[in-house]
Amino acid sequence: MQNIRTDLAVEAHELSKREAKNATEIEGVISSVEEKNGISITRVEITNENGSRELGKAIGKYTTIDAPNLKYSLEIYEKVCKIIAEEIQEMADIKSDMTTLVVGLGNRDITPDALGTGVISRLMVTRHIKARMNEMVDDSISGVCAIAPGVLGTTGIETADIIQAVTERIKPQLIIAVDALAAADIERVSTTIQISDTGIQPGSGVGNNREGLNEKTIGVKVIAIGMPTVIDAATISKVKIPEELSPLMVTTKDIDLVIERASKTVANGINLALHKNMTLHDIDCCIG
Amino acid sequence: MQNIRTDLAVEAHELSKREAKNATEIEGVISSVEEKNGISITRVEITNENGSRELGKAIGKYTTIDAPNLKYSLEIYEKVCKIIAEEIQEMADIKSDMTTLVVGLGNRDITPDALGTGVISRLMVTRHIKARMNEMVDDSISGVCAIAPGVLGTTGIETADIIQAVTERIKPQLIIAVDALAAADIERVSTTIQISDTGIQPGSGVGNNREGLNEKTIGVKVIAIGMPTVIDAATISKVKIPEELSPLMVTTKDIDLVIERASKTVANGINLALHKNMTLHDIDCCIG
Amino acid sequence: MQNIRTDLAVEAHELSKREAKNATEIEGVISSVEEKNGISITRVEITNENGSRELGKAIGKYTTIDAPNLKYSLEIYEKVCKIIAEEIQEMADIKSDMTTLVVGLGNRDITPDALGTGVISRLMVTRHIKARMNEMVDDSISGVCAIAPGVLGTTGIETADIIQAVTERIKPQLIIAVDALAAADIERVSTTIQISDTGIQPGSGVGNNREGLNEKTIGVKVIAIGMPTVIDAATISKVKIPEELSPLMVTTKDIDLVIERASKTVANGINLALHKNMTLHDIDCCIG
Amino acid sequence: MQNIRTDLAVEAHELSKREAKNATEIEGVISSVEEKNGISITRVEITNENGSRELGKAIGKYTTIDAPNLKYSLEIYEKVCKIIAEEIQEMADIKSDMTTLVVGLGNRDITPDALGTGVISRLMVTRHIKARMNEMVDDSISGVCAIAPGVLGTTGIETADIIQAVTERIKPQLIIAVDALAAADIERVSTTIQISDTGIQPGSGVGNNREGLNEKTIGVKVIAIGMPTVIDAATISKVKIPEELSPLMVTTKDIDLVIERASKTVANGINLALHKNMTLHDIDCCIG
Repeated sequence: MQNIRTDLAVEAHELSKREAKNATEIEGVISSVEEKNGISITRVEITNENGSRELGKAIGKYTTIDAPNLKYSLEIYEKVCKIIAEEIQEMADIKSDMTTLVVGLGNRDITPDALGTGVISRLMVTRHIKARMNEMVDDSISGVCAIAPGVLGTTGIETADIIQAVTERIKPQLIIAVDALAAADIERVSTTIQISDTGIQPGSGVGNNREGLNEKTIGVKVIAIGMPTVIDAATISKVKIPEELSPLMVTTKDIDLVIERASKTVANGINLALHKNMTLHDIDCCIG
Repeated sequence: MQNIRTDLAVEAHELSKREAKNATEIEGVISSVEEKNGISITRVEITNENGSRELGKAIGKYTTIDAPNLKYSLEIYEKVCKIIAEEIQEMADIKSDMTTLVVGLGNRDITPDALGTGVISRLMVTRHIKARMNEMVDDSISGVCAIAPGVLGTTGIETADIIQAVTERIKPQLIIAVDALAAADIERVSTTIQISDTGIQPGSGVGNNREGLNEKTIGVKVIAIGMPTVIDAATISKVKIPEELSPLMVTTKDIDLVIERASKTVANGINLALHKNMTLHDIDCCIG
Repeated sequence: MQNIRTDLAVEAHELSKREAKNATEIEGVISSVEEKNGISITRVEITNENGSRELGKAIGKYTTIDAPNLKYSLEIYEKVCKIIAEEIQEMADIKSDMTTLVVGLGNRDITPDALGTGVISRLMVTRHIKARMNEMVDDSISGVCAIAPGVLGTTGIETADIIQAVTERIKPQLIIAVDALAAADIERVSTTIQISDTGIQPGSGVGNNREGLNEKTIGVKVIAIGMPTVIDAATISKVKIPEELSPLMVTTKDIDLVIERASKTVANGINLALHKNMTLHDIDCCIG
Repeated sequence: MQNIRTDLAVEAHELSKREAKNATEIEGVISSVEEKNGISITRVEITNENGSRELGKAIGKYTTIDAPNLKYSLEIYEKVCKIIAEEIQEMADIKSDMTTLVVGLGNRDITPDALGTGVISRLMVTRHIKARMNEMVDDSISGVCAIAPGVLGTTGIETADIIQAVTERIKPQLIIAVDALAAADIERVSTTIQISDTGIQPGSGVGNNREGLNEKTIGVKVIAIGMPTVIDAATISKVKIPEELSPLMVTTKDIDLVIERASKTVANGINLALHKNMTLHDIDCCIG
């Protein structure tokens, strides 16, 4: 495939079609666009190996929510929270007696990589409360627990190893993994949320080849939620960036604010999905 | 035992002796004081069940390093790093072909509780490098990996469960657990470092009864390193503090700086202990 | 007066009455309680020198808003924002063609002292926009600018000097100064907001004697808004705390969250007061 | 001049020469390179209006210190601190009875812009101590005070206005202004320190036209110290970046660490320059 790095299936699809030039569809890829309360939702489904190879992404469903004004509008924020919740509920059958493990990926010390850890800190975590006094917890509250496993460079342990170890121990019925992504198109940075049922490929955005986390490797459905926060410097650069300087990143000046608002949006989308009778208002009161 | 909460064996010992009044030693407890390069080191060993019951602490060795000027003096900082390294090496036989898991306990979002996570971020983590290109790594560098498991209230998972799961997966030969402690005496806050070979009792400073992490429960030697960063409000208060307000804490105004300097001191003590030929200067260059 | 340190006029009043024992009112002090939308508001007015001496506070009006559930309830948060706005508008006649300088006092690196700087970062600052394209700005938007002057220990400059210098330069018609306070009663920490028209006495909570900032010294009305975030260690301690250890502070474990929520509440109270036609929803959209 | 944005005189000089093509020197610009303890120092002096116009920089001296390994080597850190101190002392005659105002420019909430505020927090501030107990202060300690005035977008006040107001009030004999810069060449990001005696042009790196701060406008010598932390996205981009997305920035992934280490280096360079008998070791002990 093309040399442009993107974690978004919707971009990979566009790039593949552009490369094919004849503008026909790629075999093994179905896509559609829906408008929901003024928010545009694009669904890309990769149905076979050909589609997977062409797009460089795993077989499965990828939903893309376009929310260019997420940072500035409370109204859009609330709509996007609800859409995230509905998409999660469509991909997994959420029941109040199940346990979900939410995994916040990424390095909290690099701002544009801190989406996963930011989401973790805004979750309504309930597993320990249900374990001790389930009778006091409303029926609509399911069991939620959360970890931020860190990154290989600072833990010395493959992230997948930590997640698998904890999964075996606490036996969740669902994993939701949240991570910051890389996009090819500048306009997607901080404005697009992707939800997929294909699990995650740690470091997949940077050509890294480590073992993925998905239903096949871990025995539990893994929903991945991400937002592009950087574009790869190599993608936009007109000059060859030397290897030893490659740790450049291209991001937005307001990235701290973006990460804060996006963390809250994704966290509350997950909270709404997993605690069915709660409203955003209830959640804000609980979490403070 | 007395109603005063302390995580320090040296304080528990003093309080026990004071309570016994006759000033004789407690049966089952041996203590001695050593002066090393101008730093006072107190060693308390609890040798039997009677000593354990009297002091409210597990059987084992507790070393206390007094470093009142740690924050202000580079010289004392360097001495304390070396003493920590020597005490770790005395408690465990460090070999370059072994793997140590360092666990940073506590809640990084509560400043006085952020010692463990602060240490983690300053470690020289090597396990992944040794796994991939061991031939390039100096013989004196042992395998180090690190996790910050978070706290029950924000993860929904018992900390001990996460540590056990990761331990079973990566099979370290040694665990070093770092945590912020509570002291009874104001003068010990931010000035005393305790190292013990008895493992950790999560939440033990606050009367919490959860399962401990030690060689018996986890099959690996667990060295615990801690520094008091708070005194319990109940300990100093002349008024009865109502239950619902109990989350008060008493700490020092410069606690941010204290945590930063103490994290660096403990981290570099561990770095020196586990990477035997390295100097503090080498480590600073590596970690930056 | 008594030896108990408090920045709250309402507490000083209670302590004075208790000391006087005969439970009669203090001459020169008028107080009343109002219930507004379920929120209790206490107004203490010191009308003469006798009242000022008895309470150890300047002559003027002090409004205290009790909001024990501020941290947990969006509804109370919204009510308190509106009450703050109304109290400011009662103390000063806000017009859209005036300029207000908001001063965020305190040390941002000590969490319980970071209320003032937290408020500054959530203000809808407009002075520079009005100066350049006033025709594009809605008539209800008044001119707002903001500084965080820091504290003497880290700037080497008296805070009052910086505020006076900037005031002379930009000539605001109103100053609103925000600061973290000390209370005597544990139950007031993080739950009470005081608004007064008497200006501020830098460091007044700790017996410090530096020059105050008020209409007399600076030529502009100074409204002070504060919330207790600490109680003085000496106030609750049953033991004498040695002088060199005095930088102890007693605060709540969730102080980071408290500061975040209180900063938002006070900032939005100010935003509503100064930009009259805006709603909380508008402000959230503007500030993000 | 060329369309490439840079705050570095040394880059502007190279670009001018390249544009002139005939490789001769630009009239009105003198440059030389010196090697000092293994560190390369480039001096560019703009001597007349022609040089100023060609390079797009004010008449005066610009010293550039190349320190590619600053982040990784304590040895280079110490050398660079000393070189900064010597260059400051060469540009201004430091006497112990004078007062220097250090100004930390930039927005502390945008990591790559937080160099100035980072430096401020590591200074040995002495003005208030000398004012109160000068007899207790060593003769080599000069008067130092510091402010972080913030940025127009968050204060609503021109930065130059705040600095002028404070300068008129406290009447320093020297101003040192520290700011993060933009470079054209990726390899200069985080590796180059520029010191000049020409004052600062707020926002000059981004084509902004606001009034400068220099000896002419403010009546006091202004030494500017900066380090490039970003390259302008427009500089490297092969695609036209739309205006509304212009707040992109290109920086390094380790920018948090870079800012921390660079802040310490510049701060200690200033500390050594202003407190003549002190060593780096003394300063570390004082500041902690």
